[in-house]
Amino acid sequence: MNELNALIAQTIQSIDWRKKPENLYQPIEYILSQGGKRIRPHLCLMACRMFGGDVQKAIVPAVAFEMLHNFTLIHDDIMDKADLRRGKETVYKKWNTDIAILSGDTLFAKAFEYMLSYQGEGKYDLLNLLTKTSVEICEGQQYDLDFEQMENVSVQQYLEMIRLKTSVMLAACLQAGAIVANANKTHQEIIYQFGIKIGLAFQIQDDFLDVYADVEKFGKQVGGDIAENKKTYMLLQLINVIDNQDKQNLDYYMTQNLEKQDKYQKVKALYDKYKIGDMAKQIINTYFEEAMDLLKQINIADENKKELFDFANKLMNRDY
Amino acid sequence: MNELNALIAQTIQSIDWRKKPENLYQPIEYILSQGGKRIRPHLCLMACRMFGGDVQKAIVPAVAFEMLHNFTLIHDDIMDKADLRRGKETVYKKWNTDIAILSGDTLFAKAFEYMLSYQGEGKYDLLNLLTKTSVEICEGQQYDLDFEQMENVSVQQYLEMIRLKTSVMLAACLQAGAIVANANKTHQEIIYQFGIKIGLAFQIQDDFLDVYADVEKFGKQVGGDIAENKKTYMLLQLINVIDNQDKQNLDYYMTQNLEKQDKYQKVKALYDKYKIGDMAKQIINTYFEEAMDLLKQINIADENKKELFDFANKLMNRDY
Repeated sequence: MNELNALIAQTIQSIDWRKKPENLYQPIEYILSQGGKRIRPHLCLMACRMFGGDVQKAIVPAVAFEMLHNFTLIHDDIMDKADLRRGKETVYKKWNTDIAILSGDTLFAKAFEYMLSYQGEGKYDLLNLLTKTSVEICEGQQYDLDFEQMENVSVQQYLEMIRLKTSVMLAACLQAGAIVANANKTHQEIIYQFGIKIGLAFQIQDDFLDVYADVEKFGKQVGGDIAENKKTYMLLQLINVIDNQDKQNLDYYMTQNLEKQDKYQKVKALYDKYKIGDMAKQIINTYFEEAMDLLKQINIADENKKELFDFANKLMNRDY
Repeated sequence: MNELNALIAQTIQSIDWRKKPENLYQPIEYILSQGGKRIRPHLCLMACRMFGGDVQKAIVPAVAFEMLHNFTLIHDDIMDKADLRRGKETVYKKWNTDIAILSGDTLFAKAFEYMLSYQGEGKYDLLNLLTKTSVEICEGQQYDLDFEQMENVSVQQYLEMIRLKTSVMLAACLQAGAIVANANKTHQEIIYQFGIKIGLAFQIQDDFLDVYADVEKFGKQVGGDIAENKKTYMLLQLINVIDNQDKQNLDYYMTQNLEKQDKYQKVKALYDKYKIGDMAKQIINTYFEEAMDLLKQINIADENKKELFDFANKLMNRDY
């Protein structure tokens, strides 16, 4: 793991962003230097290694997808009016919206440019995968924006949104690693679907933890989604099963300006009453088990799968 | 010309944008269906035909660049707070900023996707050209934004900005046509530089016409740049040569809230006095002649060059 970490960090650091105009390239350098967990490039490199490929080759799609991911963060933060990311000011906040739009666009173009530098057989497959994934992420973000304005969103619609917004990029990174390793199409498809399932489990867990996280253990504040009336898996599932009287109470909590902690406690009491946490844990487990089953289907030695298996487990336990 | 027009229109129309989410794809269909002059795809097809290539093949890069162009319009209109484009509401105005950011991003990705559908030898060259050009356009737009905040901008800096913001895309379209036609590297470079020169001439002419256009002939309102104190070639050149007394007057016109027509007349009087119009016409002619000289250097029959020659002339006379 440390070795992959180092490879990713070194490769990203070695890119020379000190270009002009500074207002375009400094935001790019700023966001890429923040690091974050680098989940996506790790997935790419691990999948490549699992299929017996060369991580020194896979680093190209790994970094291209990390660029794509950071481009989406720059633009999403404008739309979400998010002031902080990874504990630092977001690009649009530190500079301004225009610069965030343009430096995002540039990073998007640079992701394609970086992928184009790949030398090897699967080049078109990698480029097609990057393009398809870019479009799907935009679709996911648009559904997310649409949902804010919609009265009724089904759990099914929500799952499709997070598939597009979160899962496809994880899946694409894994498939990219498989492509570099010359894995066959069946293996590529399995590892892609593995990524989809892990992504869904991961995102629903995120929704769950907003209500039930152990603050000391996870270092994450709870109740952010509740404060914003965000249409999470938790809320949509609650609306599915709630009785009329409690629904009226819920509507009251969501529309009156309750104090944040008070609102959190009241909504949480409804989640408790209807056992929404258990429902979430169940679907998280289902997706996670489906992912593990897919991993088992891949016809290679278990010891080669261990790295990815451990990574998925750490990701879900959030102690990675 | 009509034949190329039809090919471009049909190809763009045949793309199926009726995808979901609607808020993402309707703005794309909206802006692409408006047409505009389609200068960029025309340049691509004409260059291809000039070098003996097949326009049915060149239509792929032609449309990919038209998509790229329209993506930049969607995002630029947000930054420029432009309410109208081609006589219709801009995307950010008709929908909103978030949708304009996201549908722009999607169209950008779709431009790459479209280029990836090209089948033929020069595919990587086309993809590299599209990527390089995308980055340069972002750089040009960032310089344009930077200049708004800068006290002093030199004519040299301005020319570099319009080279990036306007010329490189025209140049790239021409080179793309040459690539499809398997033109040699020297011819590709010459036709690229031809595009750079035509682009510079075209943009400076635009600045000139904001002051001196015959409103009836061009159907364009004059004085828009003057009203906004825009740092055009005209203004930057005036500041280069103006005496202290007139500079004080100019500063006064630019900082007091004069009535638009009054301000236009007063600033125009300074342009007249210092013969800035003549200076502009001279540099426009120089670039145009340089472009024509480049066209002459290309070692093919004059009759094959005629279409592009006529197009460049029409572009500069604005009766295209």
